[in-house]
Amino acid sequence: MSNEVTLTQACDFLKSNDEYIFLTHAQPDGDTVGAAYSLGYALKGMGKKVKILCADHIPSKFSYIISSFKHDEVTNPAVVALDIADEKLLGSLYAEFCGKTDLVIDHHVSNKKYGKMNYVVADAAATCEIMADVLTELKVNMTQHITDAVFTGIVTDTGCFKFSNTTAKTHITAAKLINLGAQAAEINRLMFDTKSKSRIKIEAEVMANMEFYFGGRVAVIVLTQDMIKKVGCNTSDLDGINALSRVIEGVMIGITVREKETGIFKVSLRTNEPISASEICAQYGGGGHTRAAGCEFSVPIEEIKSQLLASAKTALEENGCLI
Amino acid sequence: MSNEVTLTQACDFLKSNDEYIFLTHAQPDGDTVGAAYSLGYALKGMGKKVKILCADHIPSKFSYIISSFKHDEVTNPAVVALDIADEKLLGSLYAEFCGKTDLVIDHHVSNKKYGKMNYVVADAAATCEIMADVLTELKVNMTQHITDAVFTGIVTDTGCFKFSNTTAKTHITAAKLINLGAQAAEINRLMFDTKSKSRIKIEAEVMANMEFYFGGRVAVIVLTQDMIKKVGCNTSDLDGINALSRVIEGVMIGITVREKETGIFKVSLRTNEPISASEICAQYGGGGHTRAAGCEFSVPIEEIKSQLLASAKTALEENGCLI
Repeated sequence: MSNEVTLTQACDFLKSNDEYIFLTHAQPDGDTVGAAYSLGYALKGMGKKVKILCADHIPSKFSYIISSFKHDEVTNPAVVALDIADEKLLGSLYAEFCGKTDLVIDHHVSNKKYGKMNYVVADAAATCEIMADVLTELKVNMTQHITDAVFTGIVTDTGCFKFSNTTAKTHITAAKLINLGAQAAEINRLMFDTKSKSRIKIEAEVMANMEFYFGGRVAVIVLTQDMIKKVGCNTSDLDGINALSRVIEGVMIGITVREKETGIFKVSLRTNEPISASEICAQYGGGGHTRAAGCEFSVPIEEIKSQLLASAKTALEENGCLI
Repeated sequence: MSNEVTLTQACDFLKSNDEYIFLTHAQPDGDTVGAAYSLGYALKGMGKKVKILCADHIPSKFSYIISSFKHDEVTNPAVVALDIADEKLLGSLYAEFCGKTDLVIDHHVSNKKYGKMNYVVADAAATCEIMADVLTELKVNMTQHITDAVFTGIVTDTGCFKFSNTTAKTHITAAKLINLGAQAAEINRLMFDTKSKSRIKIEAEVMANMEFYFGGRVAVIVLTQDMIKKVGCNTSDLDGINALSRVIEGVMIGITVREKETGIFKVSLRTNEPISASEICAQYGGGGHTRAAGCEFSVPIEEIKSQLLASAKTALEENGCLI
């Protein structure tokens, strides 16, 4: 029953109403924020009323995008969901907005197409890459805020053009945004080269205590509540810490065991070709993507390690990666 | 007396000889290697003989570029220098090739134009960005090796499109290379997401022991020979370690004091706007760029720190950055 629409139909809908609510996903990232605010500034520039909602606090590093935005009061708004693959990702907004989305704009291949209209472009690197086309189609005057917001979504979802989702079109879109005056270098510095002191301290702790097994094919990071408290870091300081193990030369399986609360451990697996992270996690009731998956445990940490290391060894052997 | 030539003239010269020697700079990086080997594969494809020289060992991470290249014996070669701003950067090749370069191709604004012909494009992000135009002008068949080599130079000199030298043209060039089949994601992973175990250990050591002064405005990293030996890392493991301090939120001056040999210390300063790194280093007989400069000391480490911290304090005060 999914009603898929074209770029033109999506843009016609964005032109046809006077009032909009834009939904972003919980634990907001640069792409959901960039997409919602760029479109928000654009439609306000076209004389419409816009209110943007997010279940969680938007991190202060995005203040250059959001701080100038004046949210309007709306009485009979159309609802647009941006970069939200599944309504469950609305967090605390779920109860109010479940089943209420008029238009979905998203790039996730797994998008549930829960909107009355759905414009999903699965080969776009970011929702903001789609947004660049939407704004062109709408003939929007690309202000500094709009340009910077769109650029932010693209760089944050691609790891600054580093990940495999980056295509020729991603680069061409970036070129257009730079020509329009996007503050690329400054945005990149804020997004990728700015770390809190507590982030530095927890990275140091994690790297110093990383354990290696099977000739360096497997790396294990353990993050206990004690370590987190000792360093005094918060949840956002831990973003992406799972990725630290896989970057080490020779490592094919990176295992991060993080104590969520006393006695409950969340495991993140990151693998390199040809090892399947989701197959290993499935053995423990978890799942995910081929190269990034997770599962949960509530047994002592030494037991978690011995179970996962046994599974890792089997996976390495089956793929001929242990000599 | 510098003889600047156009793209067409440079390409005419590359077509006009049968034998070439390509020079790369000492301590080779992705740009000098990518430029020399992409042009090397191209001219060999045009039936010419090519030999590529480098004073130092080319790091094994570039093996996907260099391992298939067969160096020819040459008897009467034309000499082309790639990505070399100054003949002094030839290292041990200086004695043999000083004054012998026929064609310089480079992007450094500081290029000394020491060639008989010089094609220097100072607003190019990388010599490989220029090389993309050269190869187009030469109507080269863009093989996998050539495409990957050019892409490598662009990403390594721009920090994967992160630094301020990245322009719209850089992105458009990247888009063309991806359309030609450049293995972008895999190259990026090798260049940016692959660290040796000893690199991880020295980063952990450095981050755990970083010192902060003046309310976190100044960060100091000390790297002694003892630390380096303890971790067992080599020179390439220390690449870019100077940059670690400046990425911390609030830090305006990052000072790295590295013991080169017993009692001799090399200081690297990295600053954020508006602090001048070169002005501080000039006080100690050093110099460099506005935001990245260096100097040397041969006094005890505590004395180096107290002198530099005093200079840093003055600079912060003069710029109204200490409250």
